Amino acid sequence: MEKRLTIITLGVSDLISATDFYESKFGWTKSEAINDNISFFLLNGIYLSLYPKDELAEDATINADGNGFKGFTLAYNTKSKAEVDHFINTLRAKHVNIVKEPQETNWGGYSSYVSDLDDNLWEIAFNPFLELDKEGNIVN
Amino acid sequence: MEKRLTIITLGVSDLISATDFYESKFGWTKSEAINDNISFFLLNGIYLSLYPKDELAEDATINADGNGFKGFTLAYNTKSKAEVDHFINTLRAKHVNIVKEPQETNWGGYSSYVSDLDDNLWEIAFNPFLELDKEGNIVN
Repeated sequence: MEKRLTIITLGVSDLISATDFYESKFGWTKSEAINDNISFFLLNGIYLSLYPKDELAEDATINADGNGFKGFTLAYNTKSKAEVDHFINTLRAKHVNIVKEPQETNWGGYSSYVSDLDDNLWEIAFNPFLELDKEGNIVN
Repeated sequence: MEKRLTIITLGVSDLISATDFYESKFGWTKSEAINDNISFFLLNGIYLSLYPKDELAEDATINADGNGFKGFTLAYNTKSKAEVDHFINTLRAKHVNIVKEPQETNWGGYSSYVSDLDDNLWEIAFNPFLELDKEGNIVN
């Protein structure tokens, strides 16, 4: 298998509200989808997909029950500490839940967390050791 | 915020075993990391990161308790149906848990699911409507 992935799908409780969150809070435009039952956001070469949680579990043929920490996080890395503060202040003004205020980390970075409507965690962080190209992809 | 993400971090119960899974089953090589407490796999412009679940929750300042469906899936899209069968047969021979056998979908694709050691779900699928470039990135 090649070292790549294509889609991250988040199972959501309300597709319209979840889609609105990424459009109105993150300011992202969704892609045209084949039907109204799924939302796609084309990020840097991959899709972030939103799909009703029950149907996602059904698609994977597993039980949809689950609660508490989901055991994963997504990270959006900025190009500076100031950008972390700027995004967090912007998201706060839009009433997004700030889970962790921006702060220095023990690995030399500057990090914060916000959550979406389904408690998916997004780390908004600056990592001085990580080089990003113009498209936001990690430079090897 | 730009339409991109940098890192997907999976909280794992045993970092060494989880890292070995992606190395020996998926055949991926990990990147050099700053310390032994985290594993990074550089995929198509993003990192897949493995990190102890408790520490991931602690980093996000949330409770680490959680069980059942995690409410998300990752997808690896192939270039053909035959490639789905090939990967699933290869993973089966390596004793990876096949959650859903390859089968035709109602959206015109061909899909299967496997799980890693922490029950993270990977869909291995062929989507005839999705165009990928040589790096495996989605063509808009």
